[in-house]
Amino acid sequence: MITPFQMIRNKQNRLSHSEEEILYMVDGFTDGSIPDYQMSAWLMAVYFNDMSDIETRYYTKAMVNSGKRLDLSYLPGFVVDKHSTGGVGDKVSLILGPLLAACGLYVPMLSGRGLGHTGGTLDKLEAIPGYRTQLSLEEFQRIVEKTGISIMGQTKDICPADKKIYALRDVTSTVASLSLICGSIMSKKIAEGIQGLVLDVKCGNGAFMTTPEDARKLANLLTEVGIEYGLKMASVITDMNQPLGNNVGVWSEVRESVDLLQGNGPADIREVTLVLAQQALKMAQIPGDHHSLLETALSDGTAYAKFEEMVIEHGGSPEALNDPGVNSPKFTHEIMAQKDGWIGHMDTYKIGMSIVEMGGGRIIQTDKLDNSAGITFYNKFGHSVKTGDVICTAYCSTESKLDRAVKMLSDAISVTDESVEELELIIDIR
Amino acid sequence: MITPFQMIRNKQNRLSHSEEEILYMVDGFTDGSIPDYQMSAWLMAVYFNDMSDIETRYYTKAMVNSGKRLDLSYLPGFVVDKHSTGGVGDKVSLILGPLLAACGLYVPMLSGRGLGHTGGTLDKLEAIPGYRTQLSLEEFQRIVEKTGISIMGQTKDICPADKKIYALRDVTSTVASLSLICGSIMSKKIAEGIQGLVLDVKCGNGAFMTTPEDARKLANLLTEVGIEYGLKMASVITDMNQPLGNNVGVWSEVRESVDLLQGNGPADIREVTLVLAQQALKMAQIPGDHHSLLETALSDGTAYAKFEEMVIEHGGSPEALNDPGVNSPKFTHEIMAQKDGWIGHMDTYKIGMSIVEMGGGRIIQTDKLDNSAGITFYNKFGHSVKTGDVICTAYCSTESKLDRAVKMLSDAISVTDESVEELELIIDIR
Repeated sequence: MITPFQMIRNKQNRLSHSEEEILYMVDGFTDGSIPDYQMSAWLMAVYFNDMSDIETRYYTKAMVNSGKRLDLSYLPGFVVDKHSTGGVGDKVSLILGPLLAACGLYVPMLSGRGLGHTGGTLDKLEAIPGYRTQLSLEEFQRIVEKTGISIMGQTKDICPADKKIYALRDVTSTVASLSLICGSIMSKKIAEGIQGLVLDVKCGNGAFMTTPEDARKLANLLTEVGIEYGLKMASVITDMNQPLGNNVGVWSEVRESVDLLQGNGPADIREVTLVLAQQALKMAQIPGDHHSLLETALSDGTAYAKFEEMVIEHGGSPEALNDPGVNSPKFTHEIMAQKDGWIGHMDTYKIGMSIVEMGGGRIIQTDKLDNSAGITFYNKFGHSVKTGDVICTAYCSTESKLDRAVKMLSDAISVTDESVEELELIIDIR
Repeated sequence: MITPFQMIRNKQNRLSHSEEEILYMVDGFTDGSIPDYQMSAWLMAVYFNDMSDIETRYYTKAMVNSGKRLDLSYLPGFVVDKHSTGGVGDKVSLILGPLLAACGLYVPMLSGRGLGHTGGTLDKLEAIPGYRTQLSLEEFQRIVEKTGISIMGQTKDICPADKKIYALRDVTSTVASLSLICGSIMSKKIAEGIQGLVLDVKCGNGAFMTTPEDARKLANLLTEVGIEYGLKMASVITDMNQPLGNNVGVWSEVRESVDLLQGNGPADIREVTLVLAQQALKMAQIPGDHHSLLETALSDGTAYAKFEEMVIEHGGSPEALNDPGVNSPKFTHEIMAQKDGWIGHMDTYKIGMSIVEMGGGRIIQTDKLDNSAGITFYNKFGHSVKTGDVICTAYCSTESKLDRAVKMLSDAISVTDESVEELELIIDIR
């Protein structure tokens, strides 16, 4: 008979866990029969000694089976979702979801809140006055069925094991483990009842994975588990050595998403969104030229209409999206180039943390957000600037916080004397 | 400002903890402000990445300062203790303590219970009818002052941090960490108010350290910390590739100790005891020939008289020590050689676990003991045996447990066709 103690010891000694053993650990912790101090010791042993691919699959399975799993196979279109490993300025979900719905796909998207330097889709939606992110699974399913897209938060019915384990990992510094990350991501996606999943694995100085090699490793692990569950899988490795798009911060990212959905917006975020969307259309076997299909949905207003529809279904106010009085910051500060040259380095992690400093992100899960906090970039990596040119503007609603953030932000951006090679935005498609 | 999360993260990243930080962690856990799940994550990170010598000293200091520290410097003789890292059949404390007291030294000995394959001094003393192991510190001090020797359990006043941390380590598989072991051992010894400490670091297949190199490493670490606290330190590395003495098990070890204290008993346990005792007399700067001094104390009855004195002071019955009706086993089984040859291997860990199987040891802290359970060896490592010779007798008070233990025990002892080189009992004295 296995005990939590023996599970910990086996992991310390790199002995494999069986499917039954992993189920015992996950279920035992979820139902409270295994105490949190033993779970945290086991998680830390996993952090150091990792789980094999097969153990990771058992772990994911135990998470999925801890709650309900939606069945959306009756829907008349391909059911798909996207997952990003997180970065700074990454607002792709807000654009991609409605865009795919506009192309006839169904997107049941369970999202999370931001923590640390990365933002969360849920926070952005909650900044829209009235938008409800805590619906029942039934209501979620109804909205997906009706509009093709719904984005809300994880419910207690979906992967309750993941919810409880994630909360423990969060306070015990055991988040950064490939196998645990895989289990957490994939279990929720599998429970959504999707048929395909497109991964956006970020790499660079603002991402969890700093090198393309590590990003590929995570992509492979996630893909394997997805295939095991009969999902069509595609993954794109994208650069995160600078913020994605020109706007970072809760409300400014919502605003930029609206721009994109209306056919405008910066080229980089547009490119990442289109590449991911093409992967989704491909696995859905949608006929025709995908690129022009997507361009049309953005330019003719159908993508934006889907977004408005979703906002309305969730109780939100679409008028607020274009109301300059909503979430407007009280204080603003311009950061200017101190010399002529090229922007040669952007410490993206630090840029993300300067948002946290302004109150626009969280250090702990319960932190309240300043939705108005944000940064708008006028110049990014590789741009040539002259002394006095505005690189970016930072803004939020507390002056002292803005001052501290501006210092961090100035440190995070370097102007070099020589021009630099452009960063490759799309590193790999697989 | 440091947080438990940051402490965990720093240890994961092999960053050094300051004295203040370690104090924060130890005190915070002890007073309940740091939750057990974060402490267990930190302990596991220490298990994997270890603490430096300087961190270990800070850790030990925090443990010592969590409770009271006795001051016995007013006593008219040298105040000394011995610590053994634990083995099978190791009853040295029961003999050494009274022996040193008989030579004019003072021995305030706080001991622990057995867990797993190793026995505990406290369990053996508690098997003596009436012997109280939970005295107040004042009473303990009074007995030491009066008789020169008292052995009791850790009280809530001594190193409460260690008590709480050890309980957590015990259930999270974080006992086996050199620095944590060092902190736990040394803090209690330092708090006893001793002036010198003799270490018996066991190595072999029945010890925590399997190789002499590892044993020396632990000895060095313990010695460094002791010297930091102004203690005189000596350490002896001794073999644990077979049980020490001829008797293993709670009551049978008490009985063998009485034999030793009365000038009889097996040569190996006698030798280890005398070597350790000589180290103590040397650091106490006792004049004369130490070996003959000790031999005399054993043969003329003064050592045994000290033991009886201690037992009486603790409320125990010295008559019971020689009463064959006390703790006598109900069932007995002889294990015989199945072929002619030499005893070439004794799996000492397994021998210890066969005692646990019989109910004479613990798997978890709260297990109740069968004091009658034990093994008496008639032949040990290197002895030549003929088919049908009795190697040992196992006994306890539950027949079904005896049957299972006998199977384990038979597996644990191998008879080989060729003679084997004798084991070196005293590996190193430093």
